[in-house]
Amino acid sequence: MKKVGIAASGLTEFSKNDSSIESIMLSSVKSLFEESRNLSQKDIDVVLTSTNNNKKYLSNIISELSGISPRIAHSVESLCNSGTNGVVSAYSYIASGLADVVLITGAEKTENPGLVLNWDESRGQYKHPIYWGSMFASAYMRRYGTTMEDIAYVGAKNHRHAVDNPFAYFKKMFSIDDIVKSKLLTDTLRLLDCSMPCDGAASILLASEESIKKFTDTPVWITGIGQKSISAGFTKNQDLASMKSNILSSSDAYGMAGKNASDIDVAELHDAFSICEIIELEDLGFAQKGLGSSYVRNLYDTNDKKINPRGGLIGSGHPLGATGIAQTIEIFQQLQGKAKKRQVDGVKTGLVHNMSAASTSSTVLILES
Amino acid sequence: MKKVGIAASGLTEFSKNDSSIESIMLSSVKSLFEESRNLSQKDIDVVLTSTNNNKKYLSNIISELSGISPRIAHSVESLCNSGTNGVVSAYSYIASGLADVVLITGAEKTENPGLVLNWDESRGQYKHPIYWGSMFASAYMRRYGTTMEDIAYVGAKNHRHAVDNPFAYFKKMFSIDDIVKSKLLTDTLRLLDCSMPCDGAASILLASEESIKKFTDTPVWITGIGQKSISAGFTKNQDLASMKSNILSSSDAYGMAGKNASDIDVAELHDAFSICEIIELEDLGFAQKGLGSSYVRNLYDTNDKKINPRGGLIGSGHPLGATGIAQTIEIFQQLQGKAKKRQVDGVKTGLVHNMSAASTSSTVLILES
Repeated sequence: MKKVGIAASGLTEFSKNDSSIESIMLSSVKSLFEESRNLSQKDIDVVLTSTNNNKKYLSNIISELSGISPRIAHSVESLCNSGTNGVVSAYSYIASGLADVVLITGAEKTENPGLVLNWDESRGQYKHPIYWGSMFASAYMRRYGTTMEDIAYVGAKNHRHAVDNPFAYFKKMFSIDDIVKSKLLTDTLRLLDCSMPCDGAASILLASEESIKKFTDTPVWITGIGQKSISAGFTKNQDLASMKSNILSSSDAYGMAGKNASDIDVAELHDAFSICEIIELEDLGFAQKGLGSSYVRNLYDTNDKKINPRGGLIGSGHPLGATGIAQTIEIFQQLQGKAKKRQVDGVKTGLVHNMSAASTSSTVLILES
Repeated sequence: MKKVGIAASGLTEFSKNDSSIESIMLSSVKSLFEESRNLSQKDIDVVLTSTNNNKKYLSNIISELSGISPRIAHSVESLCNSGTNGVVSAYSYIASGLADVVLITGAEKTENPGLVLNWDESRGQYKHPIYWGSMFASAYMRRYGTTMEDIAYVGAKNHRHAVDNPFAYFKKMFSIDDIVKSKLLTDTLRLLDCSMPCDGAASILLASEESIKKFTDTPVWITGIGQKSISAGFTKNQDLASMKSNILSSSDAYGMAGKNASDIDVAELHDAFSICEIIELEDLGFAQKGLGSSYVRNLYDTNDKKINPRGGLIGSGHPLGATGIAQTIEIFQQLQGKAKKRQVDGVKTGLVHNMSAASTSSTVLILES
């Protein structure tokens, strides 16, 4: 298989604003071109847009507005892991030999239609994503005796990290006390346990080993890919203290890269809700079952930024189609040693975990410098 | 590059009905499973949905409803060539080694949101696709002195072919006289020069050389792929008697397959409007410039089914996300010798041409038995 690497990236601030989806996508594409000064429009073979936005032919429109005439151009949608689905699709275009250089741009507007699905509506009045988050939280707490204060450390840690992320939606510290006193939304989740839908865009450039030298001296390689869809609902994830798609996708990604959790120096985990990060730490092999919250507590107490250094979804905000790309960009920058105040020391191997719809679909990427 | 082939297919009738998009997709998936009796849900690594429908997470929902738990699942959208974009994406997943077996299911409902784009609306009152069709027709007629009767042969031929297609929207002969007397919609196009939006689904199974034997004794190989996006509007297609994306995408596809137009025994060309088929015959090298309508006239007079044997979009109907897949299925069946009354004799090499939005984006596939 051909070697595929990440060459450049571009982000917009995650916020709430009146700009169109085209406008924020273009803004992140412009930043990407600025980061890679040798990149010309002619170099780009494929343009993929990852979004839940209903605009049609968007990859072609963004191409035209950017002065690019790609060979292949289409949108990729899979709800909250649209972004990493775009990255994996781009990887396959390059690894197959169909393309050398692929631009993926992901974006969402707050009013995006992916927040409540017809499928969610089958849960009647419990149709917002927080209800599946809460089901996992309740099941996990029951199983392991974990408290709401225990899970609050995820939010406190990730909000603290987001202060150093210039693109984050929140840039404010919240104490454990702030979090456990924030509005109770369900039996087991509070407002500050949740990620926030917002407007934002993220663009990333992938290239083959032969082409990448033109664009960067510090490429980062995608060495492991795992994806798994368990079901579109809860029907096949019977143990709600764990997420089956995480276990299977990470196992595939580790296998492909020849790595395991102990090799990972820095990771982005999809903390749509605080409980998710705790379960993911266990599912992905960072912590033993039932010890995910102790693992987070230890990270918090030692100010260790290894997990979600940009602030995760809870600190950075969650513009659906941009999220998986923004997570990948964070690990790219960490492995380049360019993460500034967020930099984790001596990192060589990183991991991205991005998921959709109650973890019924998960993507895991392993990146290496 | 790994060899990638087509193993099985499934279609629904193209019609206007009250079924949901999920329902028609599943119906075509069921037919595909019936065609390939050894196929089990566990064999399928990737499920792609190609559609302009606004439903989110559809590939995962279709997977669950079909009993499939794929590794990769996402939607692919690029307006009218969403279907072949899905096929090319599937090809890349297999050729890259990330997958062995990919199911692509494409569908559209008549009320789909891809019929008029924001981009189209920039043309003011001339926002329906027929207006770009008419611009090409006017430019072509002016250049070559072609008449509306000349281009009517496309509709007469394709409607005649559709009578033998059990899945076609129209199954009725129309004479040249019927066509030239049908309602005049623009200065240069009449009702029976146009394809009809409708409801329909088409599914296709791609597999690697190692896996395909399990599913079929008569695989058809994808040996050439060409795609090109010129622009999202007309800005870069200055000669409206030709379509630049057709020329570039077919050149790439022929190059990859080591073929040229004279090697093609049977072809599906994207006849969104009758004028398109004439221009495509020239752009793809079947006819010399200015002689496309004579070429069609000759096919009609000799009852040669080489071009659009299933009836094209004009005879079969045009459910956007399904069209490119249905075109690919026709060439698959032709090369398998299983096209029944539509069978073109002695065919070994076929071509699929599928395009979007005024031919600003085109896909060409070369298939070989």
